[in-house]
Amino acid sequence: VNADPQSEPARLEVGLGARSYDILVGAGLLADAGTYLSGVLAAPRVVVVTDGNVAPHHLAPLEAALDAAAIQHAAIVLEAGEQTKDFSHLQDLVGKLLGQGVDRGTTLVALGGGVVGDITGFAAAIVLRGIDFVQIPTTLLAQVDSSVGGKTGINAENGKNLVGAFHQPKLVIADTETLNTLAPRELRAGYAEVVKYGLIGDRVFFDWLAENASRILNGDADARRHAVVTSCLAKADVVSEDEHEHGRRALLNLGHTFGHALEAETGFGDELLHGEAVAIGMVLAFELSARLGLCPEADAVAVRGHLQDLGLPVGLGGLKHDAWSAEILLSHMASDKKVRGGKPTFILARGIGAAFSTDDVDTGAVRALLEDALAA
Amino acid sequence: VNADPQSEPARLEVGLGARSYDILVGAGLLADAGTYLSGVLAAPRVVVVTDGNVAPHHLAPLEAALDAAAIQHAAIVLEAGEQTKDFSHLQDLVGKLLGQGVDRGTTLVALGGGVVGDITGFAAAIVLRGIDFVQIPTTLLAQVDSSVGGKTGINAENGKNLVGAFHQPKLVIADTETLNTLAPRELRAGYAEVVKYGLIGDRVFFDWLAENASRILNGDADARRHAVVTSCLAKADVVSEDEHEHGRRALLNLGHTFGHALEAETGFGDELLHGEAVAIGMVLAFELSARLGLCPEADAVAVRGHLQDLGLPVGLGGLKHDAWSAEILLSHMASDKKVRGGKPTFILARGIGAAFSTDDVDTGAVRALLEDALAA
Repeated sequence: VNADPQSEPARLEVGLGARSYDILVGAGLLADAGTYLSGVLAAPRVVVVTDGNVAPHHLAPLEAALDAAAIQHAAIVLEAGEQTKDFSHLQDLVGKLLGQGVDRGTTLVALGGGVVGDITGFAAAIVLRGIDFVQIPTTLLAQVDSSVGGKTGINAENGKNLVGAFHQPKLVIADTETLNTLAPRELRAGYAEVVKYGLIGDRVFFDWLAENASRILNGDADARRHAVVTSCLAKADVVSEDEHEHGRRALLNLGHTFGHALEAETGFGDELLHGEAVAIGMVLAFELSARLGLCPEADAVAVRGHLQDLGLPVGLGGLKHDAWSAEILLSHMASDKKVRGGKPTFILARGIGAAFSTDDVDTGAVRALLEDALAA
Repeated sequence: VNADPQSEPARLEVGLGARSYDILVGAGLLADAGTYLSGVLAAPRVVVVTDGNVAPHHLAPLEAALDAAAIQHAAIVLEAGEQTKDFSHLQDLVGKLLGQGVDRGTTLVALGGGVVGDITGFAAAIVLRGIDFVQIPTTLLAQVDSSVGGKTGINAENGKNLVGAFHQPKLVIADTETLNTLAPRELRAGYAEVVKYGLIGDRVFFDWLAENASRILNGDADARRHAVVTSCLAKADVVSEDEHEHGRRALLNLGHTFGHALEAETGFGDELLHGEAVAIGMVLAFELSARLGLCPEADAVAVRGHLQDLGLPVGLGGLKHDAWSAEILLSHMASDKKVRGGKPTFILARGIGAAFSTDDVDTGAVRALLEDALAA
């Protein structure tokens, strides 16, 4: 992994041999996207896939940039929202791509957040048994997490992201100016994935975030760039080492075992955004670590306090679901796709910046934690 | 690639680094399938996917073999036929697999012909972003072609096999006794893919086939074994060198550019089986090669004569489609998924055993060939 924070834009490498690619981070990169794309396209033709929320803000500037670089382009605008990540929308997208005559030299460009990136990347993985794609993430969550690392896919009736492929992009262009069009709540939710990298393995970054989080949320370009670059460096490092999540990559699921259970109960919708579920999940993971005597109580308190200060949810109290029970949440955890042989994997921590993976967690302790959280 | 024709079964290796796997070929292997599977399973649980034609013959023996090896198993029986290879059946299969609680330690077992192998392999490629699978091909076509090499997928409305993945099996078990349950026409159609290997690169094999084809079709175990082993050795060699069809693997498409155009017009159904379309396509490819002065006329005559002697179709005369035209067939060729930038690739030959790939074929010559074939 290389990074030169002095140049514009920052260029980080995800090192995966023949599948290596760069992540570009900077303010205003969309205007030069054609130039950056020209360096990675097999042929000068792309299909841009975006959604109805993103297109009004960013499609025309991207198309102008493609025109300026003499890259042929077409666009497909998906319905915005998590419900687009399903089999029928995938079939529809694949049919449109084939109908437009994509061939093995065509590159797809995913312009949008996690939903657009996930379904576009998966379509690229399976159309003609695999064509190239590029990620242009326009949400904070996508810039620091979902656009990097090649996880693509859709949801199944049985659960989220249960169908998909590992398919690495050829390039990721993270233009931090696109974050200016996000709703504050969505920006905050994405921030949960930023702080995750500090909690997993970088105490210095967590301490910097504790000082600078409000700058990130309020639009400071330098702070955003530092946050995205540091997050992407951490993710690229993990992905390079463990592309298919046989080991260390699982640490990136900090907060996700709890979080997915909450999302499953709230329907993966507006009631609880993914990043918000992860925020609660990280708080629960640190609380569990502290209860098990693995982690200083002060660290668990610091995690909760930081997220709460920013306005992120940190407990189950605000979620009004009388029918919820610890058993229901436990059953969701047991059906997570990372489960092998029935035991869910938990990411716990010995402190801020010291996360580890284990499938040897006492179910009674988890149940007690959830019962207390539900009663709070 | 290793082969020891003295041992039972023959064991060939497809060399692909960490994704290498063996092909076992022999008579009666199904009875020992549990033993062979035990060597490659991540955990002792499988889901067998088969179809309504194959299940009555081979599912119970396979289940007995799995029981004998203490391998947990469930079975999913698909509707037989090419129409099963579509998005809605894929979605249904994936839903059933997830509903049965497959996890990343579960292995899928494809028991059947090309359709079962293709959709099962593709489901394995995308469920939980990829789980293991094993091929137990029960048709000659699947044993010598589709079960080896990792091409998986489904058909799209726009064409055949346009959606899929390269996903290599962990093992291929080719039990030549399963061929005894095939209809003679289906066996003949599969034979076209056997003779293809002789035509592409092995004149000695073609000459052996010219002498021994009737033994293969009439059930001689030694002849079948030799034919399947030689075919799989040839395929394994090509796949090892060019897994994703950037170069030499394209030679395996001999007869397929013409053949796919014919299948597209006949609806991929019973009127013209895939192997029959390939037989006609190979005859046309050799005829075109001869007309272009690339190949001795005698070789084109020998190819046609051999296939005709076995009862395979070798021309367009038997296909009663008054509306067919050279232009319609040419347009199908131009939309083949291997096409980049509008030019179809043809596999031509300098003689039997000397095929080569080119995208520089005069369209006028192809049109004249098709017009003559349609008029015959």
